[in-house]
Amino acid sequence: MAKKEKLSTDPYKGVRDLYPEDQAFLRYFAETARTFVEKVGYVEYGASILEPSELYKAKGAENAELASEQTYTFIDRGEREVTLRPEMTPTVARMVAGKRRELGFPLRLYSVANFFRYERPQRGRTREFWQLNVDLFGSESLYADAEILGMAYGLMKAFGADDSDFMIKVGSRTWLDMLVTELNLSDAQYRQLKRLLDAKDKMPVEEFSSKLAELGITKELILNSEPPADIQTMLAEFSAAGIGNIVFDPAIVRGFDYYTGMVFEVFDTHPDNNRALFGGGRYDNLTELFDDEGVMGVGFAMGNETIYNFLEVRKLLPPYLPTTKLYIAITSPELAPQAQTLAGQLRTEGINVAIDFGDKKLGDQIKNAAKHKIPFLIIVGNAELASGDFIIKDLASGKETPLARERLADFFNN
Amino acid sequence: MAKKEKLSTDPYKGVRDLYPEDQAFLRYFAETARTFVEKVGYVEYGASILEPSELYKAKGAENAELASEQTYTFIDRGEREVTLRPEMTPTVARMVAGKRRELGFPLRLYSVANFFRYERPQRGRTREFWQLNVDLFGSESLYADAEILGMAYGLMKAFGADDSDFMIKVGSRTWLDMLVTELNLSDAQYRQLKRLLDAKDKMPVEEFSSKLAELGITKELILNSEPPADIQTMLAEFSAAGIGNIVFDPAIVRGFDYYTGMVFEVFDTHPDNNRALFGGGRYDNLTELFDDEGVMGVGFAMGNETIYNFLEVRKLLPPYLPTTKLYIAITSPELAPQAQTLAGQLRTEGINVAIDFGDKKLGDQIKNAAKHKIPFLIIVGNAELASGDFIIKDLASGKETPLARERLADFFNN
Repeated sequence: MAKKEKLSTDPYKGVRDLYPEDQAFLRYFAETARTFVEKVGYVEYGASILEPSELYKAKGAENAELASEQTYTFIDRGEREVTLRPEMTPTVARMVAGKRRELGFPLRLYSVANFFRYERPQRGRTREFWQLNVDLFGSESLYADAEILGMAYGLMKAFGADDSDFMIKVGSRTWLDMLVTELNLSDAQYRQLKRLLDAKDKMPVEEFSSKLAELGITKELILNSEPPADIQTMLAEFSAAGIGNIVFDPAIVRGFDYYTGMVFEVFDTHPDNNRALFGGGRYDNLTELFDDEGVMGVGFAMGNETIYNFLEVRKLLPPYLPTTKLYIAITSPELAPQAQTLAGQLRTEGINVAIDFGDKKLGDQIKNAAKHKIPFLIIVGNAELASGDFIIKDLASGKETPLARERLADFFNN
Repeated sequence: MAKKEKLSTDPYKGVRDLYPEDQAFLRYFAETARTFVEKVGYVEYGASILEPSELYKAKGAENAELASEQTYTFIDRGEREVTLRPEMTPTVARMVAGKRRELGFPLRLYSVANFFRYERPQRGRTREFWQLNVDLFGSESLYADAEILGMAYGLMKAFGADDSDFMIKVGSRTWLDMLVTELNLSDAQYRQLKRLLDAKDKMPVEEFSSKLAELGITKELILNSEPPADIQTMLAEFSAAGIGNIVFDPAIVRGFDYYTGMVFEVFDTHPDNNRALFGGGRYDNLTELFDDEGVMGVGFAMGNETIYNFLEVRKLLPPYLPTTKLYIAITSPELAPQAQTLAGQLRTEGINVAIDFGDKKLGDQIKNAAKHKIPFLIIVGNAELASGDFIIKDLASGKETPLARERLADFFNN
């Protein structure tokens, strides 16, 4: 037979294979998020990664650019134009609009899902990423905004952050729109102002001032502006509750066009990772894409990769612990059925146990358990099976604990 | 402003939106599977839905047909041909081959992931589906095959099935290959025989006999054949352990070309749903696509939709219970902060609590809790806040339980 061309073992360009240790972080991210948001009464939904492309084209110039240049968009075998979703908000708005009459409001929804953007791959930014999306629909209450902000704060704490590790900066599209009306800015000037505010921290203050001046605005008009009354009330209540790292910042505007009210970003305060971690805000008209009767929403999205970097810098990443707790090595391949029977009993007693089939010698079996970082091991031979006395070996410390069969489960369950 | 064209709220053709009740089943499927396979020492991995198309083209004629006609395949902005994965085995083989030297064997891996096939959508078959994939790499032991078969059995039990609800039929590619060699069949005849065996239960026995006769084979040669020795040993051990619904069936061959040894399918025994639920087998050469040093594997994949149908027919589907346990309604919108404070305390005491913001009147707030199927409700007004005495209402039965503030958590935690 002719030697065949071998295939590459690399994944598709820009995406990652998640071997067990990487998958374990994704799961930690998802489960920490789930546990936290479910405490606040959010329920999980899901949707396909495939969406009709028109969903992203309808939202105005800036997002159209995202749709046309940074998405995976293709024509399917049925001549439909389809896009791998680059964000969740249009999808969840579509779902809510689609069952508006059956769903009850306020409605609290969350998902942990993957997204694709066709961007140049770089550190902390792959073409596929995962996000927690949290959305609260159908309430215009200031306290709906406060709940969402409080959850952004609480999630950071749930991942182990201290208050000094991050800062939540709150802006207001309402405030911005009033300013724009007051100053009689054109649509183009409005866009220019938004871009300028968004880039404020990336330029010297003189440059910021002079660019503002081109729009007829003084730096002071922006930076000394008072928060709108509703945001002032919220911040006072957070402060009264002892939360001091949620502050007003008029320069927070967020990229997406669909925001209409409060907007916010969570910033890492660490000098080596001084950037926005995630953000969100209020979008009151998005379901009008589908339906004249809009449903108002407020929410945010938090990505796994930025949180990974945040936790890594602070040594807050949980150490990898495999879900398997015990490995059974055997002195001879014929003992595999007895090892499996013992393992089966221990499993019903609550322990996650893997066995070796004895294809390799004992030393290699023990090395295999260590490679998988399984914490404990027992060796099963004819002597152990006859006496019912086993030795549990701690593979990290080398410590050995002799135990009778009926005591094995206690070792793990206590 | 001109009236804008409204977008459809339908999902992309052939995929499903998972509203909370649908998502809850997917999560039940995933968590039941996870808990079970982790007991047996399998660890979770993940991979992107996007794969280079060549991964599916390299596997021989039958799979090439799947790749060319039933996949979502497109050209990306970088001129690469990319496919939305239609199955997991090639991906996990690629990942194992890619880190063969670092990974320890035996290696137990699982994933719960989504897949796409461009097929005509029909009941129980959408274009996107989810599967548990379980694979054991690096052991040629008969007991590795037995572990996989035992897990297929155990998973069915974990979902609540009785032994009489299903039957596991075990075939052997080794046996089939020996027969083909013995009879000196051509490649085309081999394919014909495989297709015929696969369709055996879909045709009258006379038709099966006459088609076999065209290949020079008698029905008896197939149906009366003894299982190979290794399968005989396995089945005897299952039988000795009291498991009687794992049987040899020489007609089980499985579609994919990559199987090389034991193959199996799990059949529903219910007359209204008499079909294969899922299956798997041993594939010893798949990693040779990437590398001359192959790693042998044995595993299976179980889909969420066939299991849903199996459970539905038997009324084994778990009832929907939202993760939210308590709803707090308020008598006036100004009480939202107090309701949130009370909710916050109850959350730290372990209860998942959602509040209403009082945008609507009390009756509508209670209806909203019921719409979401939240089991319990309390109404918070000035009187309750002053006295610290609350009434927990069971929304299904209408039963009311008066409780002091400090007893509220006990009601849920006991």
